[in-house]
Amino acid sequence: MKVLIIMGSDSDLPVMDETAKVLAEFGIPFRITVASAHRTPERTLRIVKEAEKSGAEVIVSGAGMAAHLPGVIASHTILPVIGVPLEASPLHGMDALLSIVQMPPGIPVATVAVGKAGARNAGILACQIIARKDAALSKKLTEHRKKMAREVEEKAARVEKKK
Amino acid sequence: MKVLIIMGSDSDLPVMDETAKVLAEFGIPFRITVASAHRTPERTLRIVKEAEKSGAEVIVSGAGMAAHLPGVIASHTILPVIGVPLEASPLHGMDALLSIVQMPPGIPVATVAVGKAGARNAGILACQIIARKDAALSKKLTEHRKKMAREVEEKAARVEKKK
Amino acid sequence: MKVLIIMGSDSDLPVMDETAKVLAEFGIPFRITVASAHRTPERTLRIVKEAEKSGAEVIVSGAGMAAHLPGVIASHTILPVIGVPLEASPLHGMDALLSIVQMPPGIPVATVAVGKAGARNAGILACQIIARKDAALSKKLTEHRKKMAREVEEKAARVEKKK
Amino acid sequence: MKVLIIMGSDSDLPVMDETAKVLAEFGIPFRITVASAHRTPERTLRIVKEAEKSGAEVIVSGAGMAAHLPGVIASHTILPVIGVPLEASPLHGMDALLSIVQMPPGIPVATVAVGKAGARNAGILACQIIARKDAALSKKLTEHRKKMAREVEEKAARVEKKK
Amino acid sequence: MKVLIIMGSDSDLPVMDETAKVLAEFGIPFRITVASAHRTPERTLRIVKEAEKSGAEVIVSGAGMAAHLPGVIASHTILPVIGVPLEASPLHGMDALLSIVQMPPGIPVATVAVGKAGARNAGILACQIIARKDAALSKKLTEHRKKMAREVEEKAARVEKKK
Amino acid sequence: MKVLIIMGSDSDLPVMDETAKVLAEFGIPFRITVASAHRTPERTLRIVKEAEKSGAEVIVSGAGMAAHLPGVIASHTILPVIGVPLEASPLHGMDALLSIVQMPPGIPVATVAVGKAGARNAGILACQIIARKDAALSKKLTEHRKKMAREVEEKAARVEKKK
Amino acid sequence: MKVLIIMGSDSDLPVMDETAKVLAEFGIPFRITVASAHRTPERTLRIVKEAEKSGAEVIVSGAGMAAHLPGVIASHTILPVIGVPLEASPLHGMDALLSIVQMPPGIPVATVAVGKAGARNAGILACQIIARKDAALSKKLTEHRKKMAREVEEKAARVEKKK
Amino acid sequence: MKVLIIMGSDSDLPVMDETAKVLAEFGIPFRITVASAHRTPERTLRIVKEAEKSGAEVIVSGAGMAAHLPGVIASHTILPVIGVPLEASPLHGMDALLSIVQMPPGIPVATVAVGKAGARNAGILACQIIARKDAALSKKLTEHRKKMAREVEEKAARVEKKK
Repeated sequence: MKVLIIMGSDSDLPVMDETAKVLAEFGIPFRITVASAHRTPERTLRIVKEAEKSGAEVIVSGAGMAAHLPGVIASHTILPVIGVPLEASPLHGMDALLSIVQMPPGIPVATVAVGKAGARNAGILACQIIARKDAALSKKLTEHRKKMAREVEEKAARVEKKK
Repeated sequence: MKVLIIMGSDSDLPVMDETAKVLAEFGIPFRITVASAHRTPERTLRIVKEAEKSGAEVIVSGAGMAAHLPGVIASHTILPVIGVPLEASPLHGMDALLSIVQMPPGIPVATVAVGKAGARNAGILACQIIARKDAALSKKLTEHRKKMAREVEEKAARVEKKK
Repeated sequence: MKVLIIMGSDSDLPVMDETAKVLAEFGIPFRITVASAHRTPERTLRIVKEAEKSGAEVIVSGAGMAAHLPGVIASHTILPVIGVPLEASPLHGMDALLSIVQMPPGIPVATVAVGKAGARNAGILACQIIARKDAALSKKLTEHRKKMAREVEEKAARVEKKK
Repeated sequence: MKVLIIMGSDSDLPVMDETAKVLAEFGIPFRITVASAHRTPERTLRIVKEAEKSGAEVIVSGAGMAAHLPGVIASHTILPVIGVPLEASPLHGMDALLSIVQMPPGIPVATVAVGKAGARNAGILACQIIARKDAALSKKLTEHRKKMAREVEEKAARVEKKK
Repeated sequence: MKVLIIMGSDSDLPVMDETAKVLAEFGIPFRITVASAHRTPERTLRIVKEAEKSGAEVIVSGAGMAAHLPGVIASHTILPVIGVPLEASPLHGMDALLSIVQMPPGIPVATVAVGKAGARNAGILACQIIARKDAALSKKLTEHRKKMAREVEEKAARVEKKK
Repeated sequence: MKVLIIMGSDSDLPVMDETAKVLAEFGIPFRITVASAHRTPERTLRIVKEAEKSGAEVIVSGAGMAAHLPGVIASHTILPVIGVPLEASPLHGMDALLSIVQMPPGIPVATVAVGKAGARNAGILACQIIARKDAALSKKLTEHRKKMAREVEEKAARVEKKK
Repeated sequence: MKVLIIMGSDSDLPVMDETAKVLAEFGIPFRITVASAHRTPERTLRIVKEAEKSGAEVIVSGAGMAAHLPGVIASHTILPVIGVPLEASPLHGMDALLSIVQMPPGIPVATVAVGKAGARNAGILACQIIARKDAALSKKLTEHRKKMAREVEEKAARVEKKK
Repeated sequence: MKVLIIMGSDSDLPVMDETAKVLAEFGIPFRITVASAHRTPERTLRIVKEAEKSGAEVIVSGAGMAAHLPGVIASHTILPVIGVPLEASPLHGMDALLSIVQMPPGIPVATVAVGKAGARNAGILACQIIARKDAALSKKLTEHRKKMAREVEEKAARVEKKK
């Protein structure tokens, strides 16, 4: 297992599944599970320690509202922790964004965009970190960039055709 | 000891001292200390458990930025936890406010205003909670209300005189 | 009666019912009613005084927009007042949150999250305050924490199974 | 007395004095005083009733933070109430603005800008309301508009000269 | 005609109709029309001048986005102008609120809440201003307050019955 | 070709089509295409250079989230660049607005409103710029203003009739 | 005269002077003056018409608070209008930004960043527009880009040396 | 060289120096320089490519306002890019935060807190990433955690002593 994906509630799965999809796409083995910083602090700690032992290189954590989960995980490990702010309250994810990104000096969380776009980017960022010691993955990332560029060109062609 | 005051950094002392002053004013014994949700998670847990054993009725916790401390404390105790958002970043305390007040269902933090006004109110709210089983404190709180009213009347007199 | 739940409008009932459900779950007797800080200031005062006489330990008040109700109630009692900001305008509850949490020094309102999550937490916070003199309730709160932890573990199992 | 100016704290005087200056400028008799919606609810009510009896036509009220004073006053009178949001917390007056302007249906508060500009405009708005039955005041307001226009032209001349 | 209701676009009618309903309820004659500060500056000026001649006492103006209409009207008259911020963009009316309430010193706009609640309150505020010289209207406003109080009591009864 | 319309994703087409419609209305030839500042930086540069060679006078660029596209385009050309912030995340376009308008000194982007209103105005602003050397277009713009004024008058008539 | 710079108050001069400096740097003749959308609507209109007659190609307008000046100017001309939001209230220019950029469909204002950076960019954007029919100015703009690049390289060298 | 630190302006040095200090503390060789996404796009690209060739594992980029630099860098490399939002405008870094964190799907930027706290955490996060293939650095990070914990305990002792 290279990446632990951990979310605060199973209702976060439809969004955090974007991270899982990216990792599957790049062939990175991962574990995806649920733990709550507040309701199951011991479980959170245990799963982080299990991940470290299983060889995890990166932890991705999504949470909404006062989204403490990524920061609490980061306080228990020196693995890079990526935080995905989720939209889980009437405040549209601004609460989660500030609760994740504004970590005090000493314990960083690598924060990405609110919601699905962020969850997808968390997967790519995890790959970019792992690729530092995996040349084959580096190549795949470069290929992925080219594929994205091609997709943009195809979309452009369709848009230009319509007009 | 009836109240534990716990802040994330000693730089928070000038603000959190407002809570201490109120408690001293009302004759409530308290402990004031520093612990970090992220840098010293074990210490945080230990101090909360010590407070419970020493007879604490309420915990007041001030923190800035991604202010996880009050929520992390609340996850370790069923004592009422009062959170004071502090202004410790360019975002003027809005980050701390949302990180404290937007706790997910199950683990509440009783949040008060950002900064000194909130720290003062945290002390009074702690007294209001303790007063539920302390009739003498109830009387003091009622007296305090009257005193505040008198002060407003005096200020009003001064303002009206000037004109 | 141990808790008074008071909301600004009957349209707030679907949200504030979350508080009632929690109290029912924990076996705490409560009264739930409607009063408006602005349209019925006398009624608001009368109900607060009735609650005090009936032995209320905590008042929970939900309100939207310029949500003055919790603060106005707090000005008439030294009971702890919990404020629930409701989403009742295009501003998504940010108006209610600031109107409730930013109480000036002297009269605190214990503020929880915007909307249903906050209403639920208001019930739990009320129980935590009452539990200070009710050991049986303390035990129930501890049990509730364990139950929440078990639920997280079950959800985690379901999520891990799917993958 | 035609206008009651009422502020939540004597620390608001330097700002609310702008309202007083405008009224003095236009020859409108006024009373300026301090009352707190939360610390002195009875005093607030009494002063509003006194103002009504003394012939007040408009009430101007300035307040900061969870600025309930204008709304609480409006709930006790059918006189037009003008609310001035003050900057009295780290949130830069956004808290006071939303707490004043977002009044629920039934009890309006005529809200003006945050701070000194708003306090000055509260005075002018009060005059505009009183002028509905005072033709001499109407003339003064029209003169004032012309004077403001002349001042802009003078400033323009100075700016153009410099260049 | 006592009140001019003027909105920036006919798409604002469903909201601004709330103002019209209140005025009809209180028996205040009004004119409701459309003018744009930017697309029809001359028309805006002409309608304001017509309103002044027809005996208007108050102007109510609703606008969304960069809601200049109320301020532009206020610059052409010394009648009290009430501004209603409308939700007409992805920014949820915050743009209109700030564009209306933050008028610079000299030309006030009496601002009410965003959307329907504000439109309704604009009607009541207009009545409160007109009532300064109409004792019968004053009585109606006092009656209306009592009616609102009775409605709250009825709603309270229904809520209490359900439980 | 006089105007290049360039958007970050083909999902932006329904909004950016508003710009195209305005240009078609005014008879301005344009190219509309897709390029991504981040996924296809080279393509972005190439299309800007092609536009310059084809005689483009203005570039209109719409983008959502961290909307870098308009700024990146502006860094590659001295043609005026108009930026349209799109609503493409839970943050309702506030992210795109700040990412586009807050360009650092040296490289301006002419920013318009969030969403469809902005896209339409981008088209008109492009015409206003081109009209500086096209007297016929100037006339059309003046005609368009008159047409908008007539439409407001018609809407006003319909609204007044209903009442 | 090629550019009219018009600001709401002479207190805006220290910021709007940045626009003047850029124009002087590029040798573009301009007029800088003061007019208020609200206090001197006729003057505003007159100056715009004078500018049109004097051959102005672009109007730059800076304003703070409910910054209506750029939009009001835009409603009186089909010249491109550039709006500079100024920080003139406790709300840090967010009020001016939304009041300028969120113009409704039909009358665009080309908005730049809040404060001095925006004022400087307004000057450059004005030059970019004028350069559409002035090849010498185009060259200067290209030179200016190169100069900025050289300055960045020099700063980089200084920073790298220090380390 | 293991880390490239790249900032938009030399005025950002006092903040970005925090990143440099952390890297020096941990013995990580780095290059610190200035490049502008908009003023020197070619230089930015060149420096990124040089860094890749020199063996950089991580790029840290700080920028203010419409902070495009980190995103533009990320579009040119598959190295992990850490973005530090800087407070460089009246909007207090909220503009830079949203411009950096809200990257669209495909090109992530690992965002940290606004200002000095974020710059410091960028250094630590860079070390955490590099430590994935450097066991000695891992040890140093674990030691650093212990040191931070000891510092908290010392501060706590000083605070407790004072009381």
